[in-house]
Amino acid sequence: MSLLVVGSVAFDAIETPFGKTDKIVGGAASYIALASSYFTKSSNLVAVVGEDFPNEFIQHLNKHGVNTEGLQIKKGEKSFFWSGKYHTDMNTRDTLVTELNVLGDFDPIVPAAYQDCEFLMLGNLTPKVQQTVIERLSKRPRLIVMDTMNFWMEIALDDLKQTLKMVDVLTINDEEARLLSGEYSLVKAAAKIQEMGPKYLIIKKGENGALLFHGKEVFFAPALPLEEVFDPTGAGDTFAGGFIGYLAKTGDISFENMKNAIIYGSAMASFCVERFGTERIIDLSTTELDARIEQFKRLVKFNIGANLANGN
Amino acid sequence: MSLLVVGSVAFDAIETPFGKTDKIVGGAASYIALASSYFTKSSNLVAVVGEDFPNEFIQHLNKHGVNTEGLQIKKGEKSFFWSGKYHTDMNTRDTLVTELNVLGDFDPIVPAAYQDCEFLMLGNLTPKVQQTVIERLSKRPRLIVMDTMNFWMEIALDDLKQTLKMVDVLTINDEEARLLSGEYSLVKAAAKIQEMGPKYLIIKKGENGALLFHGKEVFFAPALPLEEVFDPTGAGDTFAGGFIGYLAKTGDISFENMKNAIIYGSAMASFCVERFGTERIIDLSTTELDARIEQFKRLVKFNIGANLANGN
Repeated sequence: MSLLVVGSVAFDAIETPFGKTDKIVGGAASYIALASSYFTKSSNLVAVVGEDFPNEFIQHLNKHGVNTEGLQIKKGEKSFFWSGKYHTDMNTRDTLVTELNVLGDFDPIVPAAYQDCEFLMLGNLTPKVQQTVIERLSKRPRLIVMDTMNFWMEIALDDLKQTLKMVDVLTINDEEARLLSGEYSLVKAAAKIQEMGPKYLIIKKGENGALLFHGKEVFFAPALPLEEVFDPTGAGDTFAGGFIGYLAKTGDISFENMKNAIIYGSAMASFCVERFGTERIIDLSTTELDARIEQFKRLVKFNIGANLANGN
Repeated sequence: MSLLVVGSVAFDAIETPFGKTDKIVGGAASYIALASSYFTKSSNLVAVVGEDFPNEFIQHLNKHGVNTEGLQIKKGEKSFFWSGKYHTDMNTRDTLVTELNVLGDFDPIVPAAYQDCEFLMLGNLTPKVQQTVIERLSKRPRLIVMDTMNFWMEIALDDLKQTLKMVDVLTINDEEARLLSGEYSLVKAAAKIQEMGPKYLIIKKGENGALLFHGKEVFFAPALPLEEVFDPTGAGDTFAGGFIGYLAKTGDISFENMKNAIIYGSAMASFCVERFGTERIIDLSTTELDARIEQFKRLVKFNIGANLANGN
C-alpha cells in the first residue's frame, strides 16, 4: 500500500570516537526512504535539496523503488547541512554546524500522483511544514506517523501541539517525552501525550530499546546489544522507516501488528549504527534482515509455563 | 534444593522525592532472603546484626521459611546503617551516612547444618568475606552467584578478582561492568568479565532491564514500565533473590532456565520499588506474582511468522 515519506534529504559531516566523515548524504527522509524500501516498493518522497546534491543517491533511491518526483532540486542553492560530534557514550553529541539552506523556506509540494497515499511518514521538520503536508492531501491517510524533536518543543510548541492533534503515531525519545509531558515517569508521560492527539506513542531509548504505548497497553522492543555502535546518526529515522514500511507492506495497523513493525524497525536501526551514515542500509539483503529478526526473537524469548499458584 | 544466602542485614534511612523513612530494615540479604522465599522454602541465612535489630523481622524471615541459625546477633553492638537520598531520576543517589558497626569485622560462620548447600547467593559484601564463605563450605555448591559493587572495584580490586575466579554468575550494573572491564560496549565488557571467572554475567540496567551473557549467547529481560518508582533501594538484591530462588526451586541451572529466572527476578524487583524498603515484598501472594509474570510475557511478545526472504 502506498507510502508517502516527507522529511529532510541533506548532507551530514559526522565525528565519532571511531572516525570522521566528510560531507555524506544524510537527512531523516533519506534514512526513512531507504529503510522502508526493504518492505514496500510503493513509496513516494517529498523533500528538497540544492544543486549540490549527488544525483547518484537519488538514483539509489529510485533503484530501491522510491519515487522521487516530489524531490525538489533548487538550482543555484545548497542542501541542508548538519555537522556533529558524538561523545564517548554515543548518546550525546555536540552540533558543530547547522546550515538550513534550502530547508529554510521548504514548501512541501505534493505531486498529484502521490495523492492516494495510505501511509504518511512525517520525518522531523518544522511542525508547520508537517501540518501543511497533511492539509495538502485530499484524503486523510489511514495512518499518519510523525517524528519530531526537543528543538520544536522549545521554539514552536504551539505549532507542534496543533500538528500532534492531526497524527496517529508519534515517535520521540525518552528525554523528549519527558520534556513534552512534564512527567518524569514514561508511563505518565505516555498517558499525557496520548491526550494531546496521537493514539499511539513510540518512545525510543537508543541502546535501551523502544516502548510502544496505546491506551493502557504497552509493548517493549529491545535494542540488539552490539559490539560497537559506530555511528548512531539516522538510527531513529531508520527505525521509523522500518516501522512504517512494515505496516505499509502488511496493510495491518492493529496494535498487535505494530509490535512486529517495531521489531523490524529496531532490526533496521541495528544495521544503521554499524557504519557511518546510510552506508550499512543502502544495500542490505533480505537474508541478512531475516537473520537479524531471528536474533531479536532469541534475545527476548523465555519459556515460563505453569504458574506458581498452580505449584510449578 | 537448599539455598544459602550471605549478605548484610541492616538498617536504612531513605529519602526519595516521594517521602522519607526513619530507620527501616534493609540490607542485601534481607531482600534476597525475602525474594527467594517465594520460590524455595529451604533457605539458610548467614549474616550479622547488632542487639538493636528488631526480632520481629527475624521472625518474619522464619515465617517465610528462612533458617536464621546463621544470623549472628552481637550483644551490645549496633547493626550496619546506611542512609541515602535519591535524586529525581531515581537512578542516582547521595549516601548521607554509612555506619559499618557489626559489619566492620563480620566473620561469616557457616553452621554445620548449612553445609549441604547447593545454591549459594553472595550478596554485596567485602570480596574477602565472600571468598571466606566459599572456602568454608566443605563441598562446592552447584551454583555460586555473587553480587558486588563499584566500591570494591575501587578499593579492593585484587581481592575482588580473586573472588570472581570462584563464582559462576556475577550480577552488576552497567556502570560497574564498564568500570570492571574498561570497555564501554557492554558486549565487549561481558566478554572480558567472563574471562575473569564467572561464566554467566548479569548486567542490571535498572528501569532499562537486565542482560544475561554466557559465551556468545545473550538474553534481555525488560523492566516493567511503572507509573512510579517509589524507592529503588533493594531492587537489585530482590532481583537476585528471585533469580536464585527460582533456580533453587527448579534445580535447573541451564542457560534456558536462567532466562526464566531473570524474568522472575525482574518481576520481584518490580514489586520492590513500589514501596519503601522491604514493605512491598514482605507479604506478596503467588497470585500477584503470577499476574505480574503475565504482564512481562505480554510486554515483550510479538508474532513475526514467515520471513521476508520467503516473501511474507
